[in-house]
Amino acid sequence: MFNRLCIIGTGLIGGSIARAARAHGLCRQIVAFGREKNLPNLQLAKQLGVIDQFYTDITAALENTDLVMIATPVGSMQSIFELIKPYWNSQTLYSDAGSTKASVVEAAKAAFGRVPDNFVPAHPIAGAERSGVDASDAALFQNRRLIITPLADTDPAAVEKLSHFWQQIGSSVSLMSVEHHDTVLAATSHLPHILAFALVGLLGRKDEQREIFKYAAGGFKDFSRIASSDPTMWTDICLANKQEIIPLIQQLKAELGSIEQFLVAEQAQALFEGFTYARNARQRFLDTLDES
Amino acid sequence: MFNRLCIIGTGLIGGSIARAARAHGLCRQIVAFGREKNLPNLQLAKQLGVIDQFYTDITAALENTDLVMIATPVGSMQSIFELIKPYWNSQTLYSDAGSTKASVVEAAKAAFGRVPDNFVPAHPIAGAERSGVDASDAALFQNRRLIITPLADTDPAAVEKLSHFWQQIGSSVSLMSVEHHDTVLAATSHLPHILAFALVGLLGRKDEQREIFKYAAGGFKDFSRIASSDPTMWTDICLANKQEIIPLIQQLKAELGSIEQFLVAEQAQALFEGFTYARNARQRFLDTLDES
Repeated sequence: MFNRLCIIGTGLIGGSIARAARAHGLCRQIVAFGREKNLPNLQLAKQLGVIDQFYTDITAALENTDLVMIATPVGSMQSIFELIKPYWNSQTLYSDAGSTKASVVEAAKAAFGRVPDNFVPAHPIAGAERSGVDASDAALFQNRRLIITPLADTDPAAVEKLSHFWQQIGSSVSLMSVEHHDTVLAATSHLPHILAFALVGLLGRKDEQREIFKYAAGGFKDFSRIASSDPTMWTDICLANKQEIIPLIQQLKAELGSIEQFLVAEQAQALFEGFTYARNARQRFLDTLDES
Repeated sequence: MFNRLCIIGTGLIGGSIARAARAHGLCRQIVAFGREKNLPNLQLAKQLGVIDQFYTDITAALENTDLVMIATPVGSMQSIFELIKPYWNSQTLYSDAGSTKASVVEAAKAAFGRVPDNFVPAHPIAGAERSGVDASDAALFQNRRLIITPLADTDPAAVEKLSHFWQQIGSSVSLMSVEHHDTVLAATSHLPHILAFALVGLLGRKDEQREIFKYAAGGFKDFSRIASSDPTMWTDICLANKQEIIPLIQQLKAELGSIEQFLVAEQAQALFEGFTYARNARQRFLDTLDES
């Protein structure tokens, strides 16, 4: 059991970590650190019982804390590391919930010179199109994957402690390299989000000229759901993982280009084969879900 | 009340029309016509009680029929029109459920020289990623839109009768031009399906090389759902409406291209504004759903 968990970034993810930790009795006290401008959000978190106390003073927030969870947008990781650096404690376990991992590792290197061995980069594969602490949920990570991307220097005991924490709140923990994480997530999460934003943006501008949303079917509601995700968070993620994302956008444009060519040339068989391959691939994805 | 409804194409849509018509007592008898190769499907439809009887002989199928619903993939409409042409009855109401309307009107013109005034082109905005008569559902069209695209010559009484039929099974009926229908549906339905097929195809090939689906989150399940749609039906739709779809694919490629450029140039503000616009547009879409 941890003595005191300090959440930095009490939004959907940070709030859900706090709720889950409390629900499973994983720490005696749960506090949050935030900047002055986030006071209303911190007050709400306390009022909702998500946290016991909050601080806008980092010294006070970190006192007696043995678990620090950074759940801010990935773009602000470096400034958080610099803020907590003077109080870094070798006995404390530090981790994060960022959706990209190379950028977090780079931010740590920039702040500390090297990544501290008691900082364990991690990413819960869970989320929702909603955001904010009022959407937080103790069950958000249940039956979800949690990826830990340890570095060569990362303390194995810290990895073990963090794995245990996430397993206790119901997640299935996988370990992989930073690079593999960012490649996989670019494909399965970042690209679909960009695509949803691109499509809904395009249709939104058409809808302004001529009513079209009125005639969209249920499939569109599901398909467009992730376009309701938090724009700040997603701007950060896209920039943080642009090396992986840019080639995928190019591949997708090429994929769309070949469908376009099949249409122009009326190549029914080629279209049919492509659609059939995709349908079967989705079935393989669904089978993966059933197994896990 | 109709005396006898004949369904041509007893799949998800045709089967659901039959079930809904029966549930609301809209016709005395429900029969289906199908080719020899579809015998197992017709037998299943009868066994499930979706239809009372089936015929592989078109003369017998159309006898005493006063409502004909064509619910085959849009690519086979012309051959269906040619098949029923010799038995065309001016007292019968003919309609279809095709997802594209210009192609259906062209098919009718090709078969009849002109579109018969008792053929009313229509399209229920409903569907599912499942297909086949075993997935049919009497409630599929409840609270869904049904678009009728009458031509200048279409008999207003026939339009009225068809509207009434769909309203009784719970649909909200809209009238619009063939061209407007195809423009709107290309944007809200055909393009999203192509995009889902393209994305899932791309990721499926990556998954074959290196496990990635295992780490996809819930958002991906929703986003990819329509990639499980019937490949034959969608090949037909894409070819039938290619004039509308091709420019949209080009616009989407350009949209993705500008996101790519924002990433290359690290234009955070431009990304943020684009994502925010999309998020707000989706909210407008959700508000539209609430109103309807």
